[in-house]
Amino acid sequence: QSSVQAYGLIDVSAGQFQDAGAIKDKTVASGKMSTSYFGFKGSEDLGGGLKANFAIESFLRADSGSAGRFNGDTFWARNAYAGLSGSLGSVTAGRNTTSLFVSTLLFNAFGDSFGFSPSIRHYFTSGTVTGDTGWNNSISYSSPKLGGLSAQLQVAGNDGKTLGRRYGGNVLYFGGAFAGSFAFQKVKEGTTAGTTTWQLGGSYDAGFAKFFGQYGKVANDTTNVDYKLGEVGASVPVGASGKLLAEYGKLSVKGRKTVSLGYDYAFSKRTDGYVVYMNDKLPVVDAGNSFALGIRHKF
Amino acid sequence: QSSVQAYGLIDVSAGQFQDAGAIKDKTVASGKMSTSYFGFKGSEDLGGGLKANFAIESFLRADSGSAGRFNGDTFWARNAYAGLSGSLGSVTAGRNTTSLFVSTLLFNAFGDSFGFSPSIRHYFTSGTVTGDTGWNNSISYSSPKLGGLSAQLQVAGNDGKTLGRRYGGNVLYFGGAFAGSFAFQKVKEGTTAGTTTWQLGGSYDAGFAKFFGQYGKVANDTTNVDYKLGEVGASVPVGASGKLLAEYGKLSVKGRKTVSLGYDYAFSKRTDGYVVYMNDKLPVVDAGNSFALGIRHKF
Amino acid sequence: QSSVQAYGLIDVSAGQFQDAGAIKDKTVASGKMSTSYFGFKGSEDLGGGLKANFAIESFLRADSGSAGRFNGDTFWARNAYAGLSGSLGSVTAGRNTTSLFVSTLLFNAFGDSFGFSPSIRHYFTSGTVTGDTGWNNSISYSSPKLGGLSAQLQVAGNDGKTLGRRYGGNVLYFGGAFAGSFAFQKVKEGTTAGTTTWQLGGSYDAGFAKFFGQYGKVANDTTNVDYKLGEVGASVPVGASGKLLAEYGKLSVKGRKTVSLGYDYAFSKRTDGYVVYMNDKLPVVDAGNSFALGIRHKF
Repeated sequence: QSSVQAYGLIDVSAGQFQDAGAIKDKTVASGKMSTSYFGFKGSEDLGGGLKANFAIESFLRADSGSAGRFNGDTFWARNAYAGLSGSLGSVTAGRNTTSLFVSTLLFNAFGDSFGFSPSIRHYFTSGTVTGDTGWNNSISYSSPKLGGLSAQLQVAGNDGKTLGRRYGGNVLYFGGAFAGSFAFQKVKEGTTAGTTTWQLGGSYDAGFAKFFGQYGKVANDTTNVDYKLGEVGASVPVGASGKLLAEYGKLSVKGRKTVSLGYDYAFSKRTDGYVVYMNDKLPVVDAGNSFALGIRHKF
Repeated sequence: QSSVQAYGLIDVSAGQFQDAGAIKDKTVASGKMSTSYFGFKGSEDLGGGLKANFAIESFLRADSGSAGRFNGDTFWARNAYAGLSGSLGSVTAGRNTTSLFVSTLLFNAFGDSFGFSPSIRHYFTSGTVTGDTGWNNSISYSSPKLGGLSAQLQVAGNDGKTLGRRYGGNVLYFGGAFAGSFAFQKVKEGTTAGTTTWQLGGSYDAGFAKFFGQYGKVANDTTNVDYKLGEVGASVPVGASGKLLAEYGKLSVKGRKTVSLGYDYAFSKRTDGYVVYMNDKLPVVDAGNSFALGIRHKF
Repeated sequence: QSSVQAYGLIDVSAGQFQDAGAIKDKTVASGKMSTSYFGFKGSEDLGGGLKANFAIESFLRADSGSAGRFNGDTFWARNAYAGLSGSLGSVTAGRNTTSLFVSTLLFNAFGDSFGFSPSIRHYFTSGTVTGDTGWNNSISYSSPKLGGLSAQLQVAGNDGKTLGRRYGGNVLYFGGAFAGSFAFQKVKEGTTAGTTTWQLGGSYDAGFAKFFGQYGKVANDTTNVDYKLGEVGASVPVGASGKLLAEYGKLSVKGRKTVSLGYDYAFSKRTDGYVVYMNDKLPVVDAGNSFALGIRHKF
């Protein structure tokens, strides 16, 4: 009768973690390669190709046994929605992961890594894009795949007083060796600055290596400062289960330059181990140097 | 070995939500038709007809990815108990949903809807009944069903200093076209006012429509103000899967008058879609007008 | 595909709960015999005897529907880790239950009872040991069992500023009628006092009764006060499903003397009922007298 599935990911690592200009944190950490979470989801066949879908997903910090990505984060911050899907696509309402975040993680060598991905760092933790990687009070539409093409559109209501209304989306192409995306989002001014962001991303799998590139702009519509973000990377297979990872990114105006190098070993499709080095530079302050040995387990 | 079941409900809607005297909130909302939640429950056969039972259930707001019904709500606020059941009935201890709330939701056309049910609104969100719809530190006894009759009794200890000791219960009858209930509860004075509540409710299924009626009194034992609450409604089948819903309720002293009209379409036993209009009136202030389009998915 | 298991324990009781020098709390309580919790765990076979493992476990208070052991507790406070295991043992990283806590609960008649076990009370809720029963930012290694012997080693990073670095471990022996342990831990000074603890524990199953003994020392390295803790107890089978439980413990310097007597009846392997009396004495203040009737259900 019940079709609910429990799933998630626990990522723990030991090492030194240091952002540019920050202290060295030598510790056991959680979610550096992928943010740890657990959740429930389910799908019900309503007949005629129509399905009802839901998901509730909760970030957690395994290092301290805390819920959320930070103290004060909402419990179901990763996703919390219900909706319908069919031959015309999928609609979900509630809290939805943004299209911009999905495009960002798909086209860089370190994926969704808040610890080590230069792309994630420059778009989401450097004071550029305003608004979270998930939008409250939002409706998200995902098109069906046509050839290798699909698109996503999202609108969100005024998020209390912090953010104004928001809309965004992306177009994704996956076909053969090449894949690409264009993402766009506009966050209107609330008590937080409004921003307009676009991003082009692509990857090419040459067999001996998969290459990644991203270029984007974040325009702060409140301060009228424009940030330009460029990122390049590669993933190089080493044997049947290993990959060398490299990504470099540069964020204009802030002058942030971040490079990450890693080796990832897949114990299985669900479990991998990794070693990573990251150098994170900002003007004036000392560069940050991070290195970590970790394990990431999906369930 | 493990017999735990994960289950819940996600209800999301888009529309305008406005209580009498309040601003218009145009947004994507959670739990307006049924409060969204998830939980775990299980039952173990101990032999001789005896069973051990437990449930932990957590409200959530899918619109913002937050736990609880409101900021500061306890995590397992819907239910959190363990107990035994057998031929003599069921006893559970912990946090238990009150008999009054169960009787209220069973005998009005909009069920447990905190967004749209006049009954729920007048008993539980209009400053009449004191104490929550679930009682901390409580023991709940449910009788077996005899014919169509069953009864529930509940006692709860002093809830910190907010509420004094509490007791309550109901008698329920389900037989043929007619169903009815009598519910009673007494909440003793703490720092919150003490209240004594009774409620009569009934429904009659005439085939072409099911009719609902409730009449009750909430006596505030601290201020000596008595509130009288009357509610009538109907649910009219439209085709194989549709229902028109209507409910009107009046709350004395406060002078609150609320009417709700809706159409509910069952995609399946677990998933329905709805459109609802509600008009909520209080003296002096502007009336509230709400309308919503939503989906409710049980899992 | 997904191998996640949901599990936990709900313990509820009704009675009078009174610590030495404290008021009588007559209520329905949660987790007095075993702290209530729920969690998820899973294990993936990676081949060659290697496994990936994870667990996230959350305490809860069924009496009030609250998450955690107390207001402000982290959500996944019981355990939150991922790791690998194989023929050389098991390593987990994240938040790990301490070896000292495990040794303490294994060698006293009331197990992990924060409500009734004199041992748990004297080590963990009497202001002796500093640091929690689970350590944040920790790595835990558990050896394979050699004969009846196994060992555990744990290290933890600086826990913010509250605690300094920590390490500890135990050696456990289980063989025939006799079992024993030696546990050790050092918590370095942070804003909380540093402490060094060792503990010897043992049990002997004479058939008609199982006897328990513990002796340990907690040296407060900040105040230079040494606490000595001695505990003795027994568990006496009564019929096929019953057990009489008795435990006495004495904590030096504080002058705390606690005795607990109980009867536990196993409805099944997963569900038991209990009655317990506890007398808890401290110098000068009134003794505390607790008695409770409860049910404990594992799922």
